[in-house]
Amino acid sequence: MSNYFTDNDDLQWYFETGLAWDELATITEYDYRAPDGHKTAREAIDFYREVATMVGELAATEIAPHAAEIDREGVHYEGGEVRFPKRLAAIFEQLKGLDLHGMCLPRELGGMNAPMLLYYLNSELLARADVSVMAHHGFHGGIAMALLIFSILEGSTEIDAAQMKIVKTRFGDAIAEIARGEAWGCMDITEPDAGSDMAALRTVGEQDADGNWFVTGQKIFITSGHGKYHFVIARTEKPVAGTEDDPYAGLGGLSFFLVKAYEDRPDGTRVRYATLDRVEDKLGHHGSVTGSLTFERSPALLVGERGKGFQQMLVLMNNARLGVGFESIGLCEAAYRLARDYAAGRPSMGKTIDRHEMIADYLDEMRTDIQGLRALAMHGAWHEEMAEKERLRLRFEPPTDDVGRADLDRRIARHKRKARRVTPLLKYLAAEKAVEMARRCLQIHGGNGYMKEYGAEKLLRDALVMPIYEGTSQIQALMAMKDTLGGIIKNPQEFVRRRAQAQWRATTARDPLERRVAKLQTVSLGAQQHLMTRTAADKVRSLPGKPLTEWPRAFLKNWDPKRDFAFAMLHAERLIRILADEAVAELLLAQARKHPERREVLERWLERAEPRSRFLADEIATTGDRLLGSLSDGPAADHADATAAQAAG
Amino acid sequence: MSNYFTDNDDLQWYFETGLAWDELATITEYDYRAPDGHKTAREAIDFYREVATMVGELAATEIAPHAAEIDREGVHYEGGEVRFPKRLAAIFEQLKGLDLHGMCLPRELGGMNAPMLLYYLNSELLARADVSVMAHHGFHGGIAMALLIFSILEGSTEIDAAQMKIVKTRFGDAIAEIARGEAWGCMDITEPDAGSDMAALRTVGEQDADGNWFVTGQKIFITSGHGKYHFVIARTEKPVAGTEDDPYAGLGGLSFFLVKAYEDRPDGTRVRYATLDRVEDKLGHHGSVTGSLTFERSPALLVGERGKGFQQMLVLMNNARLGVGFESIGLCEAAYRLARDYAAGRPSMGKTIDRHEMIADYLDEMRTDIQGLRALAMHGAWHEEMAEKERLRLRFEPPTDDVGRADLDRRIARHKRKARRVTPLLKYLAAEKAVEMARRCLQIHGGNGYMKEYGAEKLLRDALVMPIYEGTSQIQALMAMKDTLGGIIKNPQEFVRRRAQAQWRATTARDPLERRVAKLQTVSLGAQQHLMTRTAADKVRSLPGKPLTEWPRAFLKNWDPKRDFAFAMLHAERLIRILADEAVAELLLAQARKHPERREVLERWLERAEPRSRFLADEIATTGDRLLGSLSDGPAADHADATAAQAAG
Repeated sequence: MSNYFTDNDDLQWYFETGLAWDELATITEYDYRAPDGHKTAREAIDFYREVATMVGELAATEIAPHAAEIDREGVHYEGGEVRFPKRLAAIFEQLKGLDLHGMCLPRELGGMNAPMLLYYLNSELLARADVSVMAHHGFHGGIAMALLIFSILEGSTEIDAAQMKIVKTRFGDAIAEIARGEAWGCMDITEPDAGSDMAALRTVGEQDADGNWFVTGQKIFITSGHGKYHFVIARTEKPVAGTEDDPYAGLGGLSFFLVKAYEDRPDGTRVRYATLDRVEDKLGHHGSVTGSLTFERSPALLVGERGKGFQQMLVLMNNARLGVGFESIGLCEAAYRLARDYAAGRPSMGKTIDRHEMIADYLDEMRTDIQGLRALAMHGAWHEEMAEKERLRLRFEPPTDDVGRADLDRRIARHKRKARRVTPLLKYLAAEKAVEMARRCLQIHGGNGYMKEYGAEKLLRDALVMPIYEGTSQIQALMAMKDTLGGIIKNPQEFVRRRAQAQWRATTARDPLERRVAKLQTVSLGAQQHLMTRTAADKVRSLPGKPLTEWPRAFLKNWDPKRDFAFAMLHAERLIRILADEAVAELLLAQARKHPERREVLERWLERAEPRSRFLADEIATTGDRLLGSLSDGPAADHADATAAQAAG
Repeated sequence: MSNYFTDNDDLQWYFETGLAWDELATITEYDYRAPDGHKTAREAIDFYREVATMVGELAATEIAPHAAEIDREGVHYEGGEVRFPKRLAAIFEQLKGLDLHGMCLPRELGGMNAPMLLYYLNSELLARADVSVMAHHGFHGGIAMALLIFSILEGSTEIDAAQMKIVKTRFGDAIAEIARGEAWGCMDITEPDAGSDMAALRTVGEQDADGNWFVTGQKIFITSGHGKYHFVIARTEKPVAGTEDDPYAGLGGLSFFLVKAYEDRPDGTRVRYATLDRVEDKLGHHGSVTGSLTFERSPALLVGERGKGFQQMLVLMNNARLGVGFESIGLCEAAYRLARDYAAGRPSMGKTIDRHEMIADYLDEMRTDIQGLRALAMHGAWHEEMAEKERLRLRFEPPTDDVGRADLDRRIARHKRKARRVTPLLKYLAAEKAVEMARRCLQIHGGNGYMKEYGAEKLLRDALVMPIYEGTSQIQALMAMKDTLGGIIKNPQEFVRRRAQAQWRATTARDPLERRVAKLQTVSLGAQQHLMTRTAADKVRSLPGKPLTEWPRAFLKNWDPKRDFAFAMLHAERLIRILADEAVAELLLAQARKHPERREVLERWLERAEPRSRFLADEIATTGDRLLGSLSDGPAADHADATAAQAAG
């Protein structure tokens, strides 16, 4: 029987060999000491494998065959509510029947206490079948988990450490309802005049005399906006006097709310607290709702600290970005396999077209890119979850001494740093590659690709939103750039040391693959150095001639990443591509060191990454001055470096 | 009033300054000696400008505002015929009212004797408004012109040289009907199992005892397949014994036919000679018909010589490829301007997003690419038409002596060579850029880009067929590769000379821009040399060490471009990108030499073309061996070099 989990060798490798599932299982299952939990790593992992196998089969046999129909029928907006086509509703029922929605929740909240990594992996499998169904799944479990996490963070969850159980949690009812598959959740950020620019958000949160909160404003492009539970970001604080001209000051005035959009009465009628004004007519994702909502003094619960809404949004966004990464990989798999199978069955000029050199080259690149993306995704999601689970452990079993505490903090920081490094790279590259691969799949189909019946064009339509939602590709590039260059500013000695080390290894390492990875690192570090130097030149003319480590401490301290990266912003997309090439190479090298069968994957990656990185570094080194000159000549030159605001969050 | 011709500075430059319209007008108007023709170049050119201005206004004011509606409504297939939505039918009536369909036909056939270049230019203007309307226009005039050209080529057109008039032409009735806007034409090549691989075509042409021809078979993906007059390519000859295994032998057995798909009787009923089986449900081009047809002993006229169908198809295809070039540029203009205007009106983080560095960089590249593409298109179309017009002159005024004859032949060959060089580069790059720019336009729109109401997604849907029809991008790449390397084989001395010259100019030319163009040429020629050397190594191990000029003459003579380019086929797409970068740079340099205002355009082009070409040459030099090895290991290795067949036409 067709199965999207078992038919995927690379995924199997990560399940059987490539990832420390045991470490994750151990921390997730409280060292196997919880009364109703798994008793060994093996038991836990066997269970995870069973779930993935079940979802893989469901995706292949119950969802994928109906994806075209779901796309054709789409969702319907009628009288302020959404109606799903029958086929889609039937699939939703199946997902509900499998209790997948609350899978990652603790058992005492009705879940299976499965790791988030398994949720992400399922997302890939479902997205390979149909992204709309995947979105439906994601906006159940993902939102329920977020409710729990926010409650833990704000301290409104009561824990019984001895029993390793959550006794009570603030949003328990909502979590249970979502986990049962009876309600959706969603997050409402974008507004008509505020997309990437969150400082421009206008929706307001107001408190009455009794301390109750109400939200008023308009939100657009809300995925699963027909859902009941809405995380809403809204303005609660006025700008501090004197900062009106600062385009970033607005980020500080935001708070985070939970708003119930409606309530169903026992008599079957529905009271709406927020109006669903419309459902968008989109290019793709036809089985998924993208809605506009109006909040008119809608009752709201403040989540976390007042004025910290932007920071909380980032927590949610971080997981959402990993999620889009896995979703994109699922779509890449679908595009690659559709293209490969079509090419293998299409004869032309005496052989099937998968044996035509150019087509073979496309397919080979697609396969390699997917493996590179999955290395990023697995690494990022594993470390992100380990950080969160270590934090959770901190609440169940607080370290007894300062040494233990410091040790734990270091571990958490290390996991966080690793996840943070690759998350924007993954979101950027996976989304862009989903578009590229879907387009190649269409092109490989020739004229058939342009016709609806072959399914290739649907994949492309679905893929095209991935580089837009949960932070555009451009925003990812700015975030990665700011983190990278900000890191150099903070610790120039470390940067100089890394560069010297890479140069050394590039010539002396015994393993030729290690030399090549080191060489790739020197290309990346060289590009970073160039960006630093050119950027510094715009600030102080005398600096670029001196080594980075001799730049005055005072100057480095006064560096404002929100303001001073104008030149690097121009090249941010080129930089993020180099960073992704480098990060994937490093991850595959680490795999290859332990598992010789991965050397071949690394070789394929390097073959393409090497000339590509050289090219991007070349572009960074030789282009851009003319364009920057023209921008600073223009009328809006004062703000020429404003774009990094978002990235600076 | 909005006008797509007058609002376009680059187009205006080609009209007023950049192109030898006078030379084209002179030959088109028989040196202004035809009794009813224009009397001076100025008069002719003023007329062309009037037509372009009129079409530019029509496109901007009467078509573009309705493009979304046409896309939404689409065409409908009912009872074996096609019904167009009212709005589209009204636009068709307007085009008909302007007598645009027969614009390029001689006056005595009901036309205006306008140059084809004006037709192409109009195609760009119409495509910027809506590609479906442009297709409608193209499948009138273009097919009428083709009918005339084929008749002249086969000798079934009678000319009165003294009066410079066509007295009689074989397809006169069809031409007149199409020119009046009362019938469409189309060309029927593709079959369910034969797309790029024309040797696999199965439709047959048979002759009865009286010499009448009949066509039987199925054709698919026929643009404007609802039309009355079909050029049909069909098999008339059996494969020569012993060539059954040769995948290219089949190209020799094809003939070219004109088939009337139906006839309308005076009583209003329609007799069909070919059945319109279905109209495709496509990703885009919703106002344009893509049909499948069945021919069942449909009466046919043999056009030209029996068995020469493939060659005749190439004549038609050549013009069609130029046409797609202009169409793609029109779509690029639409995408660029939509993106630019949106970005200029969208504030984010303290300034409009067109001032954000990355977006500004995209817009700058789009603008530059359009100018580069237009340089290719204008050059290619001008030389193609000059060649055809010189050939026509040959019939009206045959040279009186051998010297004159040789001189004319040389001129024709020179024009042909220039057009042939850039045509695949234009088709390839314009189509690919149309997709790229439409996607960037969508991305610049953020979430709005994914929604139907903003128009960005429609441009991308429309663009995606451009790299597929009239020969895929991959076929263009193979054609350019074969022409380029085949040229080296034919004349290795010339290649070596060109390379030395480019190297010399790259260091010694006084003008820095000339040095940079020469440097770009050396990158291109270096990549070509590498491809030659690697390819030769596969044939004779000892050759690559020797200079090209010392390769044995016998070896070079035995070179079979259909068989011997396996390695180059892998890199054909990289090569065509380098060739396009180089060709555009050369054309812009030629412009800049005469017109200093074009230096700035060339500089912008070079800034991006230089690192890009270095990258592509780097990829050619450092990648591909692994993949080729895996292909030759596989089961279909015997045919590993078969793909060039089409290119070898």
